[in-house]
Amino acid sequence: MDTPSPPAADNEMPREEESLEREEAPPWFAPPMGPEDVAAVETLLGYEFGDKSLVGEALTHGSYYYPYPPGDSTYERLEYLGDGVLTCLMSREVFLTYRSLPPGPLTRLRAANVDKEKLARVAVEHGIHRFLRHKAPQLDGQIDDFIKELCKYKYHSNGLLDAPKVLSDIVESLIGAIYLDSNFNQEVVWRVFRNLADPLISLETLGKHPVSELLEFCQKTRRGLQFVKDGWDKHLKVDVLVDGELLGTATYAQKKEIAQNRAAKAALDKLKETLLQSQIESSSSDRLDLAEAVEL
Amino acid sequence: MDTPSPPAADNEMPREEESLEREEAPPWFAPPMGPEDVAAVETLLGYEFGDKSLVGEALTHGSYYYPYPPGDSTYERLEYLGDGVLTCLMSREVFLTYRSLPPGPLTRLRAANVDKEKLARVAVEHGIHRFLRHKAPQLDGQIDDFIKELCKYKYHSNGLLDAPKVLSDIVESLIGAIYLDSNFNQEVVWRVFRNLADPLISLETLGKHPVSELLEFCQKTRRGLQFVKDGWDKHLKVDVLVDGELLGTATYAQKKEIAQNRAAKAALDKLKETLLQSQIESSSSDRLDLAEAVEL
Repeated sequence: MDTPSPPAADNEMPREEESLEREEAPPWFAPPMGPEDVAAVETLLGYEFGDKSLVGEALTHGSYYYPYPPGDSTYERLEYLGDGVLTCLMSREVFLTYRSLPPGPLTRLRAANVDKEKLARVAVEHGIHRFLRHKAPQLDGQIDDFIKELCKYKYHSNGLLDAPKVLSDIVESLIGAIYLDSNFNQEVVWRVFRNLADPLISLETLGKHPVSELLEFCQKTRRGLQFVKDGWDKHLKVDVLVDGELLGTATYAQKKEIAQNRAAKAALDKLKETLLQSQIESSSSDRLDLAEAVEL
Repeated sequence: MDTPSPPAADNEMPREEESLEREEAPPWFAPPMGPEDVAAVETLLGYEFGDKSLVGEALTHGSYYYPYPPGDSTYERLEYLGDGVLTCLMSREVFLTYRSLPPGPLTRLRAANVDKEKLARVAVEHGIHRFLRHKAPQLDGQIDDFIKELCKYKYHSNGLLDAPKVLSDIVESLIGAIYLDSNFNQEVVWRVFRNLADPLISLETLGKHPVSELLEFCQKTRRGLQFVKDGWDKHLKVDVLVDGELLGTATYAQKKEIAQNRAAKAALDKLKETLLQSQIESSSSDRLDLAEAVEL
């Protein structure tokens, strides 16, 4: 037999036995995180854990247990907890920072500071991703690709980057672990997150989502807008037509949304360039509205 | 003139003046909440406010300022804050209550305990709705209709009731007000909410959404499922066909989703009744699977 047989096998109930065998899989297949790594992560976070096992749990992806089924000590539950406390703390932060801002922009600010891309940036900028424990072959490639693309955007890319979810997950799970370890002390959590996420995205650096900006511009200036999607195999292509003219094109494997955002961004850049040029060439005041509409 | 003219009108800048007039509208058009009402709300909540003005703010709908534009003291920002802290506290509660539950069911449990219907129930059950300050003619009717329907469902209706958003809003805004007033003390907030929301929805009382339950049943038993929607004027009708047979119908003015949920519920009730009957009439074991699938 290639697979190890359980001790004292009772052949009368083979199915129950199989699940028993899995539950009693030897503990060494998912070793605890070593004390050096735990200490290194604590230094990165600026937080010393009482329960050191939480650090390993917060950084363990389900695939780490391969070829066994995922164990209890994966980051999923801590990520859920971290998501809850971050939502609360970012709500409070923007509520206090912008004393008369209505809920719409408050919600957009909160979302941008705890969204997948922002948290994935936090993971990479502080080197937290180096401590992720997993055995999923594709993850390293996705993380490398993200890191290469990251330098193109100083701030949040507003939908142009495809951040791997695993990177934002481990930031949330570490935050959840600190919340649990500190006996639910939100001020301790906030101190850690505030340092990691610095600078927070403010109303000034929030930026606009390219699709929303393009829609808004075309509505204001009564231009026709079309997104033409073309997908084959694993390549998705999106063309953006403004008044029938092709202004932006982008392809992106697997995710239609990223291709769409990038095509919209290309079209906006082209529009802004054209409008700037026409403003330089013409001094007629009827051009002003258009320039204002795209906020040159 | 029917409308009051501003004092010392400067006719050279009528537009600016108009906005000035609005900003300087007499303060009495939105009086603070009286001390008796504040005290009554404090009693309902089991919380005494340091800053009493927060009670009025948390219970003031934008329409209360009519015919003036909504003032700063409306519940919107506090509602946003309350939503954030409730998300965090319910995350913690279900995380601690269900020590090994994965994120999917944890998220459904959290959502059910802070969703529109659950919070609107809290408002009505504790009489908080009687302190809402508004001048929107339709709101009272909507609240009355909800209260009349409420007694049909002992627990959460899972999408069959149309809860007025204003009722869940004021529970969130009061929670936000307590969070702010207590200097962001989440334990104080939790004590108040835990009492108001008792009994919390547990894994046992969570129930299934009728559309999900019907979909699941039809998938398991390989039945064809169709939702046929028909809308005219303000009446929306949804028919549910299972293997081509009309099993459920519902109409609901304005909200298609409610009609759809109710039609699905009617179809499920019909299916369960039929299956129960056929099980009574037949003792053949091949009927058992179907009965199990609908969890009679």
